[in-house]
Amino acid sequence: MSQSTVLTNIGSLVTNDPSLGDGPLGLLTDAALVIEGERVVYAGSAKGAPPADNSVDAGGRAVIPGFVDSHSHLVFAGDRTAEFNARMSGRSYAAGGIRTTVAATRTASNNVLDANLRRHLTEMRRQGTTTVETKSGYGLTVEDEARSLAVAAAHLEEVTYLGAHVVPAEFADDPAGYVDMVTGPMLDACAPYARWVDVFCEEGAFDGDQARAILTAGIARGLTPRVHANQLTEGPGVRLAVELGAASADHLTHLTDADVDALASGTTVGTLLPGCEFSTRAVYPDARRLLDAGVTVALSTDCNPGSSFTSSMPFCIAVAVREMGMTPDEAVWSATAGGAAALRREDVGRLSAGARADVVLLDAPSHVHLAYRPGVPLAAAVWARGELAVGAVGFGG
Amino acid sequence: MSQSTVLTNIGSLVTNDPSLGDGPLGLLTDAALVIEGERVVYAGSAKGAPPADNSVDAGGRAVIPGFVDSHSHLVFAGDRTAEFNARMSGRSYAAGGIRTTVAATRTASNNVLDANLRRHLTEMRRQGTTTVETKSGYGLTVEDEARSLAVAAAHLEEVTYLGAHVVPAEFADDPAGYVDMVTGPMLDACAPYARWVDVFCEEGAFDGDQARAILTAGIARGLTPRVHANQLTEGPGVRLAVELGAASADHLTHLTDADVDALASGTTVGTLLPGCEFSTRAVYPDARRLLDAGVTVALSTDCNPGSSFTSSMPFCIAVAVREMGMTPDEAVWSATAGGAAALRREDVGRLSAGARADVVLLDAPSHVHLAYRPGVPLAAAVWARGELAVGAVGFGG
Ligand SMILES: [Zn+2]
Ligand SMILES: [Zn+2]
Repeated sequence: MSQSTVLTNIGSLVTNDPSLGDGPLGLLTDAALVIEGERVVYAGSAKGAPPADNSVDAGGRAVIPGFVDSHSHLVFAGDRTAEFNARMSGRSYAAGGIRTTVAATRTASNNVLDANLRRHLTEMRRQGTTTVETKSGYGLTVEDEARSLAVAAAHLEEVTYLGAHVVPAEFADDPAGYVDMVTGPMLDACAPYARWVDVFCEEGAFDGDQARAILTAGIARGLTPRVHANQLTEGPGVRLAVELGAASADHLTHLTDADVDALASGTTVGTLLPGCEFSTRAVYPDARRLLDAGVTVALSTDCNPGSSFTSSMPFCIAVAVREMGMTPDEAVWSATAGGAAALRREDVGRLSAGARADVVLLDAPSHVHLAYRPGVPLAAAVWARGELAVGAVGFGG
Repeated sequence: MSQSTVLTNIGSLVTNDPSLGDGPLGLLTDAALVIEGERVVYAGSAKGAPPADNSVDAGGRAVIPGFVDSHSHLVFAGDRTAEFNARMSGRSYAAGGIRTTVAATRTASNNVLDANLRRHLTEMRRQGTTTVETKSGYGLTVEDEARSLAVAAAHLEEVTYLGAHVVPAEFADDPAGYVDMVTGPMLDACAPYARWVDVFCEEGAFDGDQARAILTAGIARGLTPRVHANQLTEGPGVRLAVELGAASADHLTHLTDADVDALASGTTVGTLLPGCEFSTRAVYPDARRLLDAGVTVALSTDCNPGSSFTSSMPFCIAVAVREMGMTPDEAVWSATAGGAAALRREDVGRLSAGARADVVLLDAPSHVHLAYRPGVPLAAAVWARGELAVGAVGFGG
């Protein structure tokens, strides 16, 4: 039988289960958490905790569910530091933008792509992220998209086929031909590795009709849609996402009232990516407007080498509070339970009996410190599937 | 004789010595750094490096000088999480503000103050900060200011007497009496522990005449002035700082053209504290305006439990680039050499022969990643005075 471990003396425990504690965070003070194997078996008062084989003293600090980062682009090669530097320095730069990364990814070996992905996953884990979604989208050939997804699927459960990231240069004069490929042979090659199908629905990328064709083809192959929508302009992306039952519509920087109504009345989560606006000096999405309308909001990093190279969920929380009208409680919920909802996962993003034992012990007395102490690395210890993956803790007998 | 260590295979080395490399950062590629005892003895090309007892392979990564955080308030007790949470959640809160911290600090033992300070210094060190200034200002009695400074002086060289942080409640009806105490018995008790004298020159705190009296008294006791100036409104703080030869004027959120001219023509560094504007949702200072006028600019955290509880210099760099018109190069310079200038230090904030061996190895190929990858903990290893203080590196023979 699996060993069990009790975390005792938890000053503040975010369960995200309102039946267990205060508010949407299900907040408990003077709490304990017991994990056994890969699962949480108890979250509740310290004095009600069942006995366990091992004991870890949280020292009055806060414990939260591992972050669920539901939107990243981590299968890539190449370096765009000079492009970022020029943009933020007001200097012109002959940047290929996303095509720079596509060219480098196509020429990179699987081993290079794999090593780069693992390095970023390790970096995320150190910061408390225990569930990661990632996408293809820098291959843009049948072979390069498929091998990108194979690399991702070797490490992750949440893998998204984004052949429709941008029309590659060689199809510049034949975008319809590219859509045919994305919905035909590329989909055939990629579907075995992916759970999700995504499209960048935006002026300059794929319009509403193209996006519909791509998502519909993916659905027919058993994939569930998610959509890059309304990042740069108001457009059809959000309403299409809701209509097709997408799990999430992501970015949402430019929304009409009809878009907000659609999200509020459907089952599609609105995922906001503050790192992207931070690193491109763009206007921030209005989380408050979405929350007040009743939309389920997730926060994610969008980690990618072009528009948002942060891998830090705490950073996204801090910026969402500073810039997007979220309260610290809302931002922490959106970075955990919200991300889980955006991935339609019941087993992560919460800490109550039956959940996966993805647990972060913070070097802080409260989850509020994730907003209160921006930039400070606060993950003292991280358990992933019940295994201590980051940090050192003293175990008592 | 001291052991020497060579860091080889440095992809990018920020020396802050323009005679050694490109631009104000004195940037070198394919570089090596040799440290012996507490000092740097060589910074230059990898192939020109002298032999050393030990060798560390930087793996093509970037090396920068340790951050110089020239403005913090780390001698305090108490918890203001609930106040921050209420402010960012739009809820009213019966906050005592700074007086909450004063009350908790007065009742805290020296051991508690010392432990809290050490915890924050360790946290800063882990993020690459190797020189820290800190202040009194939460005691506001002769005894509590003096013991606050004694605690600081036990750990730090850069200690600032800020009895003039705010007029305490018990002097609300007699601010002149408080200034008399600050310039009299409190100064007598505090001067032995401090290098600097500071005043919060602002409406609601100390006006220009009071600030002049306080700084002048400190100067007469051998302290050098620095000033909290122009944070909330245009006021006399900046011009007074320049007139009295202050090492630095800090905050600088609201400046007249005359203020900018004064800074540009004097020797006073302008220290910007972006964490403060971030955490209070205030307008950011305009670093570009200062830089274009020729002002020497430093970046610092202002780490304190009220208005800016970040201890992260990388976070300040990222926000300064996003919000204040600094280039990544300028922001990195200001967080290292700029902080050294604000503390009138020649031995830190640079990596060239004779400098203190305060060195940060980044998990990144370039210092630009400090802005490009906001929130990501990038300090892979930190040497302080030549000792490896953070991180593990493999030593070759
Ligand atoms: Zn994306
Ligand atoms: Zn201050």
